Amino acid sequence: MAKPRTPPIYTSPQDVALAFYQAFEAKDIEAMMSAWAEDEDIICIHPSGTRHVGYDAVRQSFEQLFAGEGKLGFRLEDLVSMETVGLAMQSAIEHVHSSQGGARGMVIATNVFMRTPTGWRLVMHHASPAPPVAVNVPSGPLH
Amino acid sequence: MAKPRTPPIYTSPQDVALAFYQAFEAKDIEAMMSAWAEDEDIICIHPSGTRHVGYDAVRQSFEQLFAGEGKLGFRLEDLVSMETVGLAMQSAIEHVHSSQGGARGMVIATNVFMRTPTGWRLVMHHASPAPPVAVNVPSGPLH
Repeated sequence: MAKPRTPPIYTSPQDVALAFYQAFEAKDIEAMMSAWAEDEDIICIHPSGTRHVGYDAVRQSFEQLFAGEGKLGFRLEDLVSMETVGLAMQSAIEHVHSSQGGARGMVIATNVFMRTPTGWRLVMHHASPAPPVAVNVPSGPLH
Repeated sequence: MAKPRTPPIYTSPQDVALAFYQAFEAKDIEAMMSAWAEDEDIICIHPSGTRHVGYDAVRQSFEQLFAGEGKLGFRLEDLVSMETVGLAMQSAIEHVHSSQGGARGMVIATNVFMRTPTGWRLVMHHASPAPPVAVNVPSGPLH
């Protein structure tokens, strides 16, 4: 049986965001859930569109995701952040790729963080598919 | 020329949310933009998946939406809210219908509000299509 880990204390929303994506890439369910607030009102919306509400439902959704084959990697771009004393928000474009490097698509993500008595934690992750990027293909002959 | 309106001061996130959906239903662009913070970091993601960043881009996106035919109505369900001193979050399932009453679909929405010097304003609206609801059809004979 794995030794119980002491949950880390994240001192900023950025630290939680980093822990969230690292846990996602590593498929580490304990690390993933340490990034979330233990609250019945936390919310996770995966790109498939289902809304999971509450700690247990969010945990189950990640257990199911992590049970799948292969691993994912994330590169965040176009970050927009807002932060107040107790709540913070981050919007980003997630470039998702397989751990072998193949592109899997782009996702628009909204993350909301709350300062709890045990440091900053994630309370909301809303991910939805980004529309395909328009590629300008030259209309004339290439050469 | 329309008389310039004094922007209202919303004293709670709930008031802004109500103003947002009322302006959406009325296709009233000035009322809609009064619900938003005048900030270059505000973000609006419509169910089509495009992310609009900044006051001007968000305004343009609603001008384009409101130029379409017909009007929409919204009924919010399964609300989950979190509020701190300066920032608040709301998650809801939007049941969207045409003004004639026909159902248009379900949308998962995340709204984030900030307390500004001129009251609470919307800073983020992330909307994405909800998956079709599974209907339990009896597997045996109906009668």
